[in-house]
Amino acid sequence: MKVAVDAMGGDHAPSAVVEGAVLAARAHAIEVVLVGVRPQVEAELARHRIRGLPLHVHHAAEVVAMDDHPAQAIRRKKDSSLRVAFDLVKTGHADAVVSAGNSGAFMAGALLVLGRLEAVERPAVASALPTVSGGRALIIDAGANTECTPVHLAQWGLCGEAYARNILGIARPKVAVLSNGTEATKGTDLTRGAYALLENAGVRFVGYVEGNDVFSGRADVIVTDGFTGNVLLKTAEGAAAGIAEMMRQEIASTAAAKAGYLLIKGALGRFKRRLDYAEYGGAPLIGVDGVAILAHGASNAVAIKNAVRVARDLVQEDLRAGLIEAAKKASVLAEKRRGKREKTP
Amino acid sequence: MKVAVDAMGGDHAPSAVVEGAVLAARAHAIEVVLVGVRPQVEAELARHRIRGLPLHVHHAAEVVAMDDHPAQAIRRKKDSSLRVAFDLVKTGHADAVVSAGNSGAFMAGALLVLGRLEAVERPAVASALPTVSGGRALIIDAGANTECTPVHLAQWGLCGEAYARNILGIARPKVAVLSNGTEATKGTDLTRGAYALLENAGVRFVGYVEGNDVFSGRADVIVTDGFTGNVLLKTAEGAAAGIAEMMRQEIASTAAAKAGYLLIKGALGRFKRRLDYAEYGGAPLIGVDGVAILAHGASNAVAIKNAVRVARDLVQEDLRAGLIEAAKKASVLAEKRRGKREKTP
Repeated sequence: MKVAVDAMGGDHAPSAVVEGAVLAARAHAIEVVLVGVRPQVEAELARHRIRGLPLHVHHAAEVVAMDDHPAQAIRRKKDSSLRVAFDLVKTGHADAVVSAGNSGAFMAGALLVLGRLEAVERPAVASALPTVSGGRALIIDAGANTECTPVHLAQWGLCGEAYARNILGIARPKVAVLSNGTEATKGTDLTRGAYALLENAGVRFVGYVEGNDVFSGRADVIVTDGFTGNVLLKTAEGAAAGIAEMMRQEIASTAAAKAGYLLIKGALGRFKRRLDYAEYGGAPLIGVDGVAILAHGASNAVAIKNAVRVARDLVQEDLRAGLIEAAKKASVLAEKRRGKREKTP
Repeated sequence: MKVAVDAMGGDHAPSAVVEGAVLAARAHAIEVVLVGVRPQVEAELARHRIRGLPLHVHHAAEVVAMDDHPAQAIRRKKDSSLRVAFDLVKTGHADAVVSAGNSGAFMAGALLVLGRLEAVERPAVASALPTVSGGRALIIDAGANTECTPVHLAQWGLCGEAYARNILGIARPKVAVLSNGTEATKGTDLTRGAYALLENAGVRFVGYVEGNDVFSGRADVIVTDGFTGNVLLKTAEGAAAGIAEMMRQEIASTAAAKAGYLLIKGALGRFKRRLDYAEYGGAPLIGVDGVAILAHGASNAVAIKNAVRVARDLVQEDLRAGLIEAAKKASVLAEKRRGKREKTP
């Protein structure tokens, strides 16, 4: 079992990425292939104690930039670290890809090189947010697809349900559609269509949830289009950062508060770790034919380490058959619904 | 100058609403007409010292429920507190409406009774979020319209700009379009169309912003469709509540942290007030022919008081001409763009 890590992708690449790979190899004994510009990757490796660790370097001369056009970058930069990482999986030299680089190019690479899983119409990004009950809520799609249909959302709901059961260990995951109100009449044509499919899908469907339900644990799997999913995740991130900053300003304003702050610092640290995306190990692409984990662009070494661990879990579990079955089920439901509609005048 | 307040609307109506009206009359000497079921409203008023305050009660026998169908409720419940409040403005017996009730019915009432402002295609809800720099970011549309066109967003951008200048006192407001990335190629047909219109509108257009920019102060006016706007606001609310709860759990876990917590309590209180929507006085409907302020359904008395104050400010400033001009400008830009497109083969 080998995980190919795009050493050149991310705001803090290659240093944080290489360090993360070292941590994953050391903590979990995972075999990692660092793909990137060899002298740069080796210079970073030289800064760590790596003797005996299952680490390899695979040279790739080019780098996909954050502002490169996704599809063009993947097609033209054939010797880029990202493209080569996917090629390694395709040719059987690795079992999974992890990258913190250009997310559009990551998606394009997964589609072009690995391809879609049978029956899945559109692969999507699944991102896990922490909830107050100590669990996580999986948001799908967290940003890959801006144009969506009800079948896409229904497929993600059922695939996400399979993921939550098999990877997150939730016995009967609650599935929901993100909307602008909880009444079934709310939402858009897209959300109402997805609602109609999921309520008959034989899963624990809890209907619509709103943005404020995401952290409450009302649902384990929440489906939405990639535009809204991106806005949701970025807003949550921005709210957390904004709240931390406003608190810092408030606490700095009196001496008693400063003293109190020193006492609660430990608790705040634990709290911050719980919120920190770094602890959550990146977002898997659900529906591509292979394991591909997209880490946050701002990933530090811990985030990369956790993304590599999630990749390992996904390879070991092999959800392939379960995901195909889930996608097919959603398509059959949509087919039935179309048939019923055509019969009713 | 009189503000009609829907005494029966909101999760804590009529008690919190009546108390809020009393506070507004006392603190700002604003004349308030409480519209609702007279015995209930008077029973609430009897719990406060109101001698000499400019408060009136206007009887309305019916109540619009939170789950009533918006348009039907407004059309059929002609003697509901919400409908009557709008009628009072239409007939010149009041100058503004404030309600914490059914937001769909509020929108329907504003459209049916007050009507659209000349040139405005779709009125929208403008909601103000606090930023780390101590200012506010105005989100338009915060939830009224799920089906939108680029012209709608452009009109809201220019109307919001006029609002930010005249009511919030920002000299040159920064206008932005909410998207899933800052590059101009990101987004959807809707956001790209709005971008093209606003970048040529002669305002300080800062392009796309993402969900995490909302609290950073990168923009003063952020336009989006009402579905996404609703998800953004609810997510921010949920993140704040979730973070507070996670912090409470963390702090409760050690004795030292508990002691520290007592010392920073004051700072946390100030911080909470800054975040609290109650301090921000409700969301004006931009683009209806009259002043209509939608307060949060969970409004407490302070929230109602502040919503009444915002209503007073809007009546006194009279933005009518400025909003019509802004809406016309956006339509002219769209017309020009259509013309240009038709010429280019």
